[in-house]
Amino acid sequence: MRLRKIKNADEILQNSSIVIKNAEMNFGKWHSYFQNQNPIYLEIGMGKGKFIIEHARRNPHINFMGFEKEPTVICKALRKIDDSINNLKIICDDAENLDKIFSEGEIERIFLNFSDPWPKNRHEKRRLTYDTKLDIYKKILNNNNKIELKTDNRHFFEYSLMQFNKNKFTFSNLSLNLHEDYDDIITTEYEDKFKEMGKQIYYVEVSYGKNETL
Amino acid sequence: MRLRKIKNADEILQNSSIVIKNAEMNFGKWHSYFQNQNPIYLEIGMGKGKFIIEHARRNPHINFMGFEKEPTVICKALRKIDDSINNLKIICDDAENLDKIFSEGEIERIFLNFSDPWPKNRHEKRRLTYDTKLDIYKKILNNNNKIELKTDNRHFFEYSLMQFNKNKFTFSNLSLNLHEDYDDIITTEYEDKFKEMGKQIYYVEVSYGKNETL
Repeated sequence: MRLRKIKNADEILQNSSIVIKNAEMNFGKWHSYFQNQNPIYLEIGMGKGKFIIEHARRNPHINFMGFEKEPTVICKALRKIDDSINNLKIICDDAENLDKIFSEGEIERIFLNFSDPWPKNRHEKRRLTYDTKLDIYKKILNNNNKIELKTDNRHFFEYSLMQFNKNKFTFSNLSLNLHEDYDDIITTEYEDKFKEMGKQIYYVEVSYGKNETL
Repeated sequence: MRLRKIKNADEILQNSSIVIKNAEMNFGKWHSYFQNQNPIYLEIGMGKGKFIIEHARRNPHINFMGFEKEPTVICKALRKIDDSINNLKIICDDAENLDKIFSEGEIERIFLNFSDPWPKNRHEKRRLTYDTKLDIYKKILNNNNKIELKTDNRHFFEYSLMQFNKNKFTFSNLSLNLHEDYDDIITTEYEDKFKEMGKQIYYVEVSYGKNETL
């Protein structure tokens, strides 16, 4: 099953004030862009946006940015964003380019929700917790950082735990059954479906000690 | 349900050549004790012994040691050990005393199988993956070390992953459903029951880089 493409998606993105064009022009200047010193939280692979929109609504003193490479998916998200939300922006790009858009320490928190597990070994490099991706996160995250990852994919979760550990991230929270352990969780569209099916959601929260001398 | 006590358990242990008395007398001299230079593998909380006995049978060039504090349980294990196994010894003691019995680097591998999860916060110190225990393992393990942990207890597993990560152990293998991922697993008595019930077994393998300058 594949999402039906929206034909004029590129045009919709072009005309939206939520979607940032030529994002790399703001490299190192994101706080000026937002005209405040509030922390910037980033969701990589924001999909249809339910999660980040709800976060933005609940936390007006945080700047949220959604990263998503599929224009059609972004169009779906845009339909849910009304004028009351002014602390959320979207970038249509690949995670590979994150460090061309954000400079050292510009981001405080990263969310990785139900990322593509790329189960085949030969696709390991595409996973959002592959070494090169983690190196990018380390660079753009600030000293007060956190990465929150949730997934229903057991092997991707096992892989990600191994990767975070190998790359010297510190686990600060871990649940192998998120919805059994916590209430009032801000969910994604996928997550709601999985939860209904009674599927277990895996969750980990890690941080990177940028000041530690290793 | 509680294991029925064997009345003369202490006497049986006293008379067994498998059970080592005054183990601390061999501190730093275990290879002389075994009269070989084979690596020493240790199971902490060996229970009725199925796991370590099978390991000893399959690996004659490794010295196995079972640690267990319950004399009655050790008696049950002793019944399964025949004369063909001469690379297995048992110590009846508490894990607290490990570093009085083994000196720096004397142990190559530690097995923690279905350890008591001590679920209450106030009992955290008793868990076999509490900081003080991990410090003891770091001390007695050699440079080629590994710790293998399996459990059916989700919260104890989550806790142990957090603890290994926090204490700078490196994950080398991880499975959230061991029996789905692997065949020909040497099991414990508990594990066989859980497996029959279709319960998921969690597994992690970690090592500690003793040569790393941290």
